[in-house]
Amino acid sequence: MRYPEALQKLIEMFTKLPGVGPKTAERYAFFLLDQPESTSQEFAVRLKELKAKTLICQICGNISEKSPCPICLDQNRDPKTLCLIADSRELAAIEATRQYNGRYFVLGGLIDTVEGIGPEKLKIRELLKKLDQEKIEEIILAFDPTIEGEATSLYLAKILRERHVRLTRLARGLPAGANLEYADETTISNALKYRNEC
Amino acid sequence: MRYPEALQKLIEMFTKLPGVGPKTAERYAFFLLDQPESTSQEFAVRLKELKAKTLICQICGNISEKSPCPICLDQNRDPKTLCLIADSRELAAIEATRQYNGRYFVLGGLIDTVEGIGPEKLKIRELLKKLDQEKIEEIILAFDPTIEGEATSLYLAKILRERHVRLTRLARGLPAGANLEYADETTISNALKYRNEC
Repeated sequence: MRYPEALQKLIEMFTKLPGVGPKTAERYAFFLLDQPESTSQEFAVRLKELKAKTLICQICGNISEKSPCPICLDQNRDPKTLCLIADSRELAAIEATRQYNGRYFVLGGLIDTVEGIGPEKLKIRELLKKLDQEKIEEIILAFDPTIEGEATSLYLAKILRERHVRLTRLARGLPAGANLEYADETTISNALKYRNEC
Repeated sequence: MRYPEALQKLIEMFTKLPGVGPKTAERYAFFLLDQPESTSQEFAVRLKELKAKTLICQICGNISEKSPCPICLDQNRDPKTLCLIADSRELAAIEATRQYNGRYFVLGGLIDTVEGIGPEKLKIRELLKKLDQEKIEEIILAFDPTIEGEATSLYLAKILRERHVRLTRLARGLPAGANLEYADETTISNALKYRNEC
């Protein structure tokens, strides 16, 4: 064994994290070794609490301390508008804009044929049940503008077609601060196609 | 707060690691959230044990489970040859070659004037004491071929000059598998300067 067992085992834990190879894992572990013991102890506490103190909101599927989550409980939010997102990180990104006042529904992923994630692995049945029970007027598809996001949008558009619900998606166009000259062709094509009145 | 407290606090712990920004920290935390609880619990145990189950060898300064470490206790290793390294990771890299059969001494860093690390922050006093007490015939300076490594080598060469000890350093030249056409000028200059008889 290259290092003492306790160090080696921690390095192995770090290599389980996404994108962390053995050299990066070593770097993390040696950094903690150089820190006061309180740092690794606090880190341990945070890891222990991660699952114990978080849960999934039974209404929207967001990660939260309580179920229903504060967003689902908020009476000031419009229950007729539902924003579909792939996971909680995207929900947090939309919340950070403070521009959206409806509710959310976390699908739990995107259709990805390469990775073998079909519609049956997403919470589509739960979504349809929700649509049966609640009076939802607009569904915003807030997925990444990627192949997986488009595939999920197309699938949902198909199965939601017969329902009386307005189906929208996040706008395509130039991102803030972009250089037209460096933007890719699809982005510029979309910016042209979806151009707005000034 | 963007996420539930327990999640947010773990993300903050991850951002303390070297080179980890908020997005990478989020990625790590959400990865653990998707794993069974046993993963984050085991991670917590490993962190708790890191400092409790490792210590610094009082003889060579290497990280170890016991002091003296197995290398210092090994009677088959030549006590007259001492390899100076900056830290335990480099010691592990040299050990992995299985080509070195002497002892080690961990300096605890390299002289780095930019970062304000002077010779007084390295274990040079301990090294001199060791040289007074033991019969060491050769000291190998096994530092990175960087400005900091060179500065440390020059400093040590100066203070060790009057002692009757052979002072060597790791060879400079082309790394295994290199392309001459892509090698930098310093590397090629060194390869020429230190050329060997075939």
